[in-house]
Amino acid sequence: MSISSLRKIVGAEAISESEVNKVLYSRDMMTRGAIQLRQGDIPCRPQAVVWPKSTQEVAQILKWAVRTKTPIIPYGGGSGVSGGVIPLHGGITVDMKKMDTVESVDPKTHTAVVQTGIIGQHLEEALNRQGWTMGHFPSSLMSATLGGYIAARSAGQLSSRYGKIEDMVEALEVVLPSGRVISLGGKVPAYPRLDPRGIFVGSEGTLGVVTRARIKVVPYPEHAVYRGISFNRLDDAMHTMRRIMQSGLRPSVIRLYDPLDSLLLQWGNSKEKQSQFSVSNLVTKLFFPSFLYKKISHKTFQQILQRPFLADQVIQRLPIEALLILGFEGDEDVIEEEMNVAKHLCKEVISRDLGEEPGLHWLKHRYSVSFKMPALLADGNFVDTIEVATTWEKLPNLYHSVHKAIGSDALVLAHFSHAYHEGCSIYFTVVGREPKKDKELKRYDRVWDHAMQTCLKNGATISHHHGIGLLKGKYLPKELGDLFALFQDLKDKLDPHNIMNPGKMGLKS
Amino acid sequence: MSISSLRKIVGAEAISESEVNKVLYSRDMMTRGAIQLRQGDIPCRPQAVVWPKSTQEVAQILKWAVRTKTPIIPYGGGSGVSGGVIPLHGGITVDMKKMDTVESVDPKTHTAVVQTGIIGQHLEEALNRQGWTMGHFPSSLMSATLGGYIAARSAGQLSSRYGKIEDMVEALEVVLPSGRVISLGGKVPAYPRLDPRGIFVGSEGTLGVVTRARIKVVPYPEHAVYRGISFNRLDDAMHTMRRIMQSGLRPSVIRLYDPLDSLLLQWGNSKEKQSQFSVSNLVTKLFFPSFLYKKISHKTFQQILQRPFLADQVIQRLPIEALLILGFEGDEDVIEEEMNVAKHLCKEVISRDLGEEPGLHWLKHRYSVSFKMPALLADGNFVDTIEVATTWEKLPNLYHSVHKAIGSDALVLAHFSHAYHEGCSIYFTVVGREPKKDKELKRYDRVWDHAMQTCLKNGATISHHHGIGLLKGKYLPKELGDLFALFQDLKDKLDPHNIMNPGKMGLKS
Repeated sequence: MSISSLRKIVGAEAISESEVNKVLYSRDMMTRGAIQLRQGDIPCRPQAVVWPKSTQEVAQILKWAVRTKTPIIPYGGGSGVSGGVIPLHGGITVDMKKMDTVESVDPKTHTAVVQTGIIGQHLEEALNRQGWTMGHFPSSLMSATLGGYIAARSAGQLSSRYGKIEDMVEALEVVLPSGRVISLGGKVPAYPRLDPRGIFVGSEGTLGVVTRARIKVVPYPEHAVYRGISFNRLDDAMHTMRRIMQSGLRPSVIRLYDPLDSLLLQWGNSKEKQSQFSVSNLVTKLFFPSFLYKKISHKTFQQILQRPFLADQVIQRLPIEALLILGFEGDEDVIEEEMNVAKHLCKEVISRDLGEEPGLHWLKHRYSVSFKMPALLADGNFVDTIEVATTWEKLPNLYHSVHKAIGSDALVLAHFSHAYHEGCSIYFTVVGREPKKDKELKRYDRVWDHAMQTCLKNGATISHHHGIGLLKGKYLPKELGDLFALFQDLKDKLDPHNIMNPGKMGLKS
Repeated sequence: MSISSLRKIVGAEAISESEVNKVLYSRDMMTRGAIQLRQGDIPCRPQAVVWPKSTQEVAQILKWAVRTKTPIIPYGGGSGVSGGVIPLHGGITVDMKKMDTVESVDPKTHTAVVQTGIIGQHLEEALNRQGWTMGHFPSSLMSATLGGYIAARSAGQLSSRYGKIEDMVEALEVVLPSGRVISLGGKVPAYPRLDPRGIFVGSEGTLGVVTRARIKVVPYPEHAVYRGISFNRLDDAMHTMRRIMQSGLRPSVIRLYDPLDSLLLQWGNSKEKQSQFSVSNLVTKLFFPSFLYKKISHKTFQQILQRPFLADQVIQRLPIEALLILGFEGDEDVIEEEMNVAKHLCKEVISRDLGEEPGLHWLKHRYSVSFKMPALLADGNFVDTIEVATTWEKLPNLYHSVHKAIGSDALVLAHFSHAYHEGCSIYFTVVGREPKKDKELKRYDRVWDHAMQTCLKNGATISHHHGIGLLKGKYLPKELGDLFALFQDLKDKLDPHNIMNPGKMGLKS
């Protein structure tokens, strides 16, 4: 492998073969990788990291890679949780973050042309300065890049109004392994054509590198209203969520928390300091009177996690309600009427209108939870999120089946956070602990396998917006069937030497 | 070619080699083909027509076609206007209309599974009987099939609320030339995957045969409101249309008629008999006092069409206003507020609220115009529609440029009928007459070439929802650039023997 010719393409300052970088770029935020790293285990590293500055440089890098048969791993923020950027077969990690320019924002067409290496929050801030928003607010906003959004079919917290990333992207510039560049095209909407979004959005760097995108932007909403509604029965709440999404309303927020997740969300109401937004605090508080919980030791928490099925039995019997957060954005009079229609639908089952406070509380703390998770990953503990989706009629059964399938190995919380006319995703949070202190991750792996198998058995999809990567690769062919063969066909045609992120998404390694 | 083995696949009653069928299936509703047929000119015919009854039969037909290197032309209603089903190289026309079953309608997920050979109106009626609608109302509703919608990326009259066909289709079953069937999959929304809609919707039978689709259905709207607003200046009306679409409102109807097209639309207000909804009556009425126009001879009309540029000069100077039709559907209180927001936006420029009457009139007569067109195709006359699209900031210039480029060869009417946040389509109607009575279509061809070249020069797209077919094939590579190479790549991979509708969409013949 001739790194020196690669150095000529990007310049000496834009390539690194340092050991530190090889470790940093050996993984993403996938729980399994994080635990392995803590244990000093780094299964694979890239041979080098490069930071291209232009589409032309990316094209030259890919041509070089085809010549030298070197794997290429496109890399955004490294905040993925499915192992999509792990350099399984070594190769060159292409960090896109130097390509981070908002090239134009067009007030006439409500679109912006943006390089894909920009971090979501920086993009949002650049848009905000001119009065715009993208309407895309994933938990990874502060770390993920636009390219990462596109690679993994990202969904943000306001997806029910603004759509998933594939609905926000108008056009893509993609560098193919041949070095050929599919251009953004003129500023014309993609009406009569092959739509490259169907091919490249969600392809996780296995078919090419997305270098630029034309995205929709919208004016900052004039008004927003929020509300919390509490439901006695979770199934009633799911039913109501479906009714709202199928009524033709487009709420900006519609998120349903199962009882345990509702508790976690509401904890902050008590004006305690923010650090108490953590799963471990939740669990200890739940089982011990308040005068005691401050003294709960680390060890007690670990004992609970050793036997999650016992905790689960208790939780199932607690009189905790499910909380639905609803929000609408837009014209003041229109959203008032829309909220009225939604409230009316809620009243068809047993529910309590809690007013705007729980909604505002959700808004304030919506990024808090995700960033507390890594702290739990110590000493045999694990925490992870499993986001799956299915159609409405299968949703209650999927929720209960997955819960049952993994509840003996981990504490399970869930919310229902991306709702559509035909179905909804479920976002499970699992917290567990390996029974032995050895380096194996048997229980953790079993949780994932049981969750995925339960999804496949129930006709659900194994991932909603975290991507497939390495973690779920072996399950994707089972889900897609013949469609997977088409995917492999496209891969073979566009990338005959299999240089693009090889070994991911269940494609040939 | 071994037709007898094909006969074994579909059964003797489902295949025809009759001359009548060869003529019937030699063309679609493309104006050029219709004129040629009147002149007795049938440039190409299929060798046979088959009517498969199942996906399995379609798969066997395609396998047979690969073995025998026979072109396959998928055929729906034959109502396309771009020559997409013309059997350029002979072969077998596969009429899908026997596969016309609505297999299921699911009230929980608001989806239906439908075979693609069903005619749009039959599908809509089947849904209506159960309280549903598809929300898709193209002018070809009474003749086009669901498969035709999908092949050409169809748009209906309520597209601003319900989307284009690609927004209504959740999943596709596609038979590939290899005979492999990409299945609909389970009832799971397509979140984490290669999205076959991006490949097959709009591919006009060049990559495979779409045999089934899972489509969104919506409950029949409880309430609807309509309104007509009149604008002094067409450019002001376009500006307002943009403002409405970018405000976050989702009108069910938003259609803007240029002055001449407004006249045509409003004619029916005068309670005259329906036959007077015709372009020829419009034109004669326009130029002659009412006591005279009933006596306008066929010859006078033809004389006007001989010199359309003179007529155009007159029309440009008439004090005719542009008419915007607005509609909203849904909850009564919500749509009242939405209409208020829209009316408020209209008032920002010089406009007159004409009340609901023009809207209701549009609703009543919305299918009338298209079906009057063929009558004009006689004796050297031509009438055709050219539907292009671009972004808002280029829209006024595109309208005026195309008008200017073709106005010396034809009378030009236009409406703006599918509006998006980023742009809008323009639907030109052109009426002209060949200067000589020979069989050549020089003026007609020049109209198309000038229109297409003007679009390409102005960064517009050459087709919005009528497809590319034969008519616009040579312009597509110019519009798509490198994206066209990707399309050809996919075609080469999926259909290496080029059996699927060869010679269409500018692909290798």
